[in-house]
Amino acid sequence: MGGDHGPKVTVPSAVGFLHRNPATNIVLVGLLDSIEAELRALNFTSNPRLKLHTASEVVDMDESPALALRGKKDSSMRIAINLVKNGAAQACVSAGNTGALIATSRFVLKTLPGIDRPALAVVLPTINGHTYVLDLGANVDCSPEHLLQFGVMGATLVSAVENKDRPSIGLLNIGEEAIKGNEVVKQAAELLRASGLNFYGNIEGNDIYKGTTDVVVCDGFVGNVALKASEGVAQMLATYLRQEFKRNLLTKFAGLIALPVIKNFKRRVDHRRYNGASLLGLCGIVIKSHGSADSYAFGFAIKRAVEEVQGGIQHQISERILELPHHSKKPPSFSQSSSKEDVA
Amino acid sequence: MGGDHGPKVTVPSAVGFLHRNPATNIVLVGLLDSIEAELRALNFTSNPRLKLHTASEVVDMDESPALALRGKKDSSMRIAINLVKNGAAQACVSAGNTGALIATSRFVLKTLPGIDRPALAVVLPTINGHTYVLDLGANVDCSPEHLLQFGVMGATLVSAVENKDRPSIGLLNIGEEAIKGNEVVKQAAELLRASGLNFYGNIEGNDIYKGTTDVVVCDGFVGNVALKASEGVAQMLATYLRQEFKRNLLTKFAGLIALPVIKNFKRRVDHRRYNGASLLGLCGIVIKSHGSADSYAFGFAIKRAVEEVQGGIQHQISERILELPHHSKKPPSFSQSSSKEDVA
Repeated sequence: MGGDHGPKVTVPSAVGFLHRNPATNIVLVGLLDSIEAELRALNFTSNPRLKLHTASEVVDMDESPALALRGKKDSSMRIAINLVKNGAAQACVSAGNTGALIATSRFVLKTLPGIDRPALAVVLPTINGHTYVLDLGANVDCSPEHLLQFGVMGATLVSAVENKDRPSIGLLNIGEEAIKGNEVVKQAAELLRASGLNFYGNIEGNDIYKGTTDVVVCDGFVGNVALKASEGVAQMLATYLRQEFKRNLLTKFAGLIALPVIKNFKRRVDHRRYNGASLLGLCGIVIKSHGSADSYAFGFAIKRAVEEVQGGIQHQISERILELPHHSKKPPSFSQSSSKEDVA
Repeated sequence: MGGDHGPKVTVPSAVGFLHRNPATNIVLVGLLDSIEAELRALNFTSNPRLKLHTASEVVDMDESPALALRGKKDSSMRIAINLVKNGAAQACVSAGNTGALIATSRFVLKTLPGIDRPALAVVLPTINGHTYVLDLGANVDCSPEHLLQFGVMGATLVSAVENKDRPSIGLLNIGEEAIKGNEVVKQAAELLRASGLNFYGNIEGNDIYKGTTDVVVCDGFVGNVALKASEGVAQMLATYLRQEFKRNLLTKFAGLIALPVIKNFKRRVDHRRYNGASLLGLCGIVIKSHGSADSYAFGFAIKRAVEEVQGGIQHQISERILELPHHSKKPPSFSQSSSKEDVA
């Protein structure tokens, strides 16, 4: 139900995804009237792979996470996460209130053994491919141990989804030298170096887009600011380019000739293809779509959920976190509800 | 002497600046042989507004700041800062080792009363103009009081250089709401709100380039990562655009037609025009040029130094910091060595 556009986006996106992916089942959770109205608008006929699940409430986009968690126990968000908890779905995808999604997921699903806090990971484009960055805002104050855990989770995600054996991990810092950075980052570097992970060392902000490493680890404050600053610079450059092509008749003509090139360029940097942040480290898979996602973008968030289910991400995180030096806890057991991927 | 290119860049840049700015005197500090060789290469004839000052050592770009401070007391960097200290120059401009420049400036010049730490401020382009961001890496762990002081220094800089009466100040955070962010940022927001400054409130990473506020305040870790991530994204987009125009004969033709537009676009985003970070909060003016600056870019760093001298920036920071609630110290006195601006 969530996101800026609600079922108008999520329902057509889910229906489109079902058509394209015959091995996936989807459960739509929310106010049934709204969902059914959208399905009718799509002339959707009954399909055993699409189920509806009622919820009487919706968490507002600007609602306090704590209030949503305490007060809205029948929200579509809470019910969808409950479905993951009780095994009726294998992943939850939401475009709703980020803070509420994190708080509710953490409360309902709990973190995996050895993980103190879940982290939000996104894929970002690089000059030669893409990279995974975490955390993007779930944690504003991180300890060195948290950053180490982010490293494990990020490496596991890349292994599971990209089939890479030993993904390289960079620690976001203000210089490459080991003496750079604050105390937390310096200690995190030592932990990562001793972890057995493929730790590249410190990297700087521009290394994100150079694709220096497969995974970029940072605290949520820094990651969030870096991501949004990047968005801001990209928007500014796009505005400048548009303005230059619209300056006069001659430049407009040049724009017409260059249109196919500009279109290819725009398709390549289309942020919708990177929609879907993974909330990692929970006993269950949760994907956060951008609130303003359209139907095309939301499809990528669903795709990410399916990839993580297929990659067995949460089981793998558990295993890897217990392989770290000084860990001796037992891995938890997982119930697999179905051989198909069910996404709520 | 500093920077990646040394006197090959700084000497022609200084000579060019002298020609364009008849009210400025420049003192070139460094190994006299190298400087004189560059002057000869330029066919430079003697000019009373250009002086040379010898120094027997050079701080290397990758040298430890602490070692440079203790061990190289006759470095060009140290001597140039000494000239500011003893009033022979009114500002120091350096493309050298950033850490050494900050450490040496702080040690030699001392911070202004009421300022705990100097901060690096840069100008960044926005959709409608530009904005000043500080700190950019001089301080990796900041207290709320430090961020407040950055706000005062940033506001003063904009007032002095841009002639704006009450520049607006944004606090870089991960959301606009007052409940967002870590404890340091939350407390800094309270201090800024009570400071009498024109505090806009929390802003997010993309607000930097939207130009939401005249000044953006953040700790040096976050600021440095945001700046470098922005550079990275801009480089990536430029690479993509170039690749798309080079894809085949047709796109190359389109590129030829669009060339004047692309050139205008590139001129507009030319980062060289934003070269020159101000090291604010010291009893003296120090400008850090990018190490890789060319002669054109280095000229903007010299220009910034002159603007700050003309704006009386350090006197104004002292006054404003003492106007803050709970401050009762006396402002220091300033010796003005000359009616012309002398830049070392």
